[in-house]
Amino acid sequence: MTGRFDIEASDGAARAGILHTAHGPIETPVFMPVGTKASVKAVLPGELHDLGAQIVLGNSYHLYFRPGADRIARLGGLHRFMGWDGAILTDSGGYQVFSLRDTAAIEDDGVEFRSVYDGSRHRFTPELAMQIQRLLGSDIAMAFDECPPAGVEREKLQDAVRRTSLWAERCRACEPAPGQLVFGICQGGVDLELRERSAAHIVSLGFDGHAIGGLTVGETREAMFETTRATAQMLPAQRPRYFMGIGDPEGVLEVIARGVDMFDCVLPTRTARTGSALTSEGRLNLRNARFASDERPLDEGCSCPACSRFSRAYIRHLVNQQEILGLRLLSLHNLRFLLDLVAAARQAIERGEFLTWKDEALRRAKGANE
Amino acid sequence: MTGRFDIEASDGAARAGILHTAHGPIETPVFMPVGTKASVKAVLPGELHDLGAQIVLGNSYHLYFRPGADRIARLGGLHRFMGWDGAILTDSGGYQVFSLRDTAAIEDDGVEFRSVYDGSRHRFTPELAMQIQRLLGSDIAMAFDECPPAGVEREKLQDAVRRTSLWAERCRACEPAPGQLVFGICQGGVDLELRERSAAHIVSLGFDGHAIGGLTVGETREAMFETTRATAQMLPAQRPRYFMGIGDPEGVLEVIARGVDMFDCVLPTRTARTGSALTSEGRLNLRNARFASDERPLDEGCSCPACSRFSRAYIRHLVNQQEILGLRLLSLHNLRFLLDLVAAARQAIERGEFLTWKDEALRRAKGANE
Repeated sequence: MTGRFDIEASDGAARAGILHTAHGPIETPVFMPVGTKASVKAVLPGELHDLGAQIVLGNSYHLYFRPGADRIARLGGLHRFMGWDGAILTDSGGYQVFSLRDTAAIEDDGVEFRSVYDGSRHRFTPELAMQIQRLLGSDIAMAFDECPPAGVEREKLQDAVRRTSLWAERCRACEPAPGQLVFGICQGGVDLELRERSAAHIVSLGFDGHAIGGLTVGETREAMFETTRATAQMLPAQRPRYFMGIGDPEGVLEVIARGVDMFDCVLPTRTARTGSALTSEGRLNLRNARFASDERPLDEGCSCPACSRFSRAYIRHLVNQQEILGLRLLSLHNLRFLLDLVAAARQAIERGEFLTWKDEALRRAKGANE
Repeated sequence: MTGRFDIEASDGAARAGILHTAHGPIETPVFMPVGTKASVKAVLPGELHDLGAQIVLGNSYHLYFRPGADRIARLGGLHRFMGWDGAILTDSGGYQVFSLRDTAAIEDDGVEFRSVYDGSRHRFTPELAMQIQRLLGSDIAMAFDECPPAGVEREKLQDAVRRTSLWAERCRACEPAPGQLVFGICQGGVDLELRERSAAHIVSLGFDGHAIGGLTVGETREAMFETTRATAQMLPAQRPRYFMGIGDPEGVLEVIARGVDMFDCVLPTRTARTGSALTSEGRLNLRNARFASDERPLDEGCSCPACSRFSRAYIRHLVNQQEILGLRLLSLHNLRFLLDLVAAARQAIERGEFLTWKDEALRRAKGANE
């Protein structure tokens, strides 16, 4: 049962499915809040559950260094450590290794780099990435991949695709934790020929799901959406497709429209920390003086803990006074907004009205954003 | 009914009572969490309620400047603004004016000082302090007083007592908000003759309760406890006595033993922000490496949201990684610890076993603190 992916409805390329994990079924499309260091910033697991989160992300790179994957394993695994009963997806650490690439030496065998914590030298290999994720005991482990930034020369992109394939094979050969699903990652930047090559190889390895990596790394939005559309079609329909790192409302709806089932982003909580709210009428910067006496909730019709009790005026006051409660309330609201948006997208897919619903939602958000 | 104070039990100088406010009855002795800027740092009103808080503090000085008492009044008052249905006590702003005294010009009519927010010049008078608190709509307003630091020459202390008396009369002449109680404040440092003079005058004005101000400003602990003991006896037994600014477990129990009914302090939340937990076995600094693999809760037998789900190892990880959730969990725990401690003190008073219970609690806390 674990790993089964049932598609319950589809509407154009968009689909509504259920992915079965060791910690229960997940309704897709699904937004996955990011808990890099075993904590979705400022939010308790019980609150996440109440907001409607089904699965959260953990970060292998950071947890390997602090507090250590071995330690988390001894303490009963990542679910128990962070007090979260839902599903967890862990990334492999590849993205972190390469986004700190100035000190990284990449070879086919693995990558040598300096820890961001203390500058000490470390070596990540596909086998180590899988071992860390086995120790963490996540429900979904990601293969170790190489993620180059946008705009690198074709030769480097080609090399990253080749190495990602090589590493995917080695990850596939590792024993995952009991019940743990493993997803492969397709690279290739915005080069559709390389995407085709990468997808074909990754798919041939029989992963439980497939991720579209290497986007939102600096390319244009048009290129990102077009690459997503084309790559999703290269990935088998009967397995879940995961777009790594997108969380703005428009982006989320557009990748769902192109056949993506899962996505993650720090955007809701990061946006909260800058004092902004995501709403059905666009983004609100609570620092703006026009909210100083505004008695309305952040978003009419939202039932999050912030909107059910507090005014924009109060949240503005908290944000301006740098009260932690301000970013807490905005984090709760922004997560709820995105989780609700994706749940509504799922319902629109089930009704066969996804595209008109999406266009209306985006028009509304843009109209008020001026 | 509002303002009535029923003493239900007493044990030595310690008493268990019920103070009736416009937002319900308060069981005393009571610890009042501090929400200086209309927020108990990092904690939601619903959480405060679940922790057992009955009354919280707001700060007239800070709320006058940000977001403004007028604004809070237009938004329905402080309870509605901050979403707290329980009782609220507001301080008068006197302490803030004088703790920033380098720029303050004190005259009998009032105090001129510079705002900490933008350096602009302002003038506080007893009448303005009462007007602010009327606009905030707190359940208990505090008279405007002068609070000198420890160690000032007797003449200055005497002057502060005289001015505090003068100002108390003017505060008493102001119309409070409907149902709002007003407490007078006794000054006099650790000089018992001045305390006697101050108490006699304040008591003669017929306030709803009496505060012992001007302590925990730099005097020794012994002098503080002795002054508290003597001053409490100068204040009428049938009115609540409020010790301004104490929140360490030992201090709280010792002032209860000397006849104090109410107290406030930022200690639980401030201690949390430094990564420390208050426990029945003393204070724990979670940064200490010995907690890295410690699966136990912060305090065995505590039922707070932190202890019911998370290990010391996890909280240590959060604290070390500066995750907001770490200070949230420690804030919840520390508030619960102090609220529970005071609730237990009340029960011990009702059983007539307060002193033995207190000594045992303090011995336990000290024994493990080494």
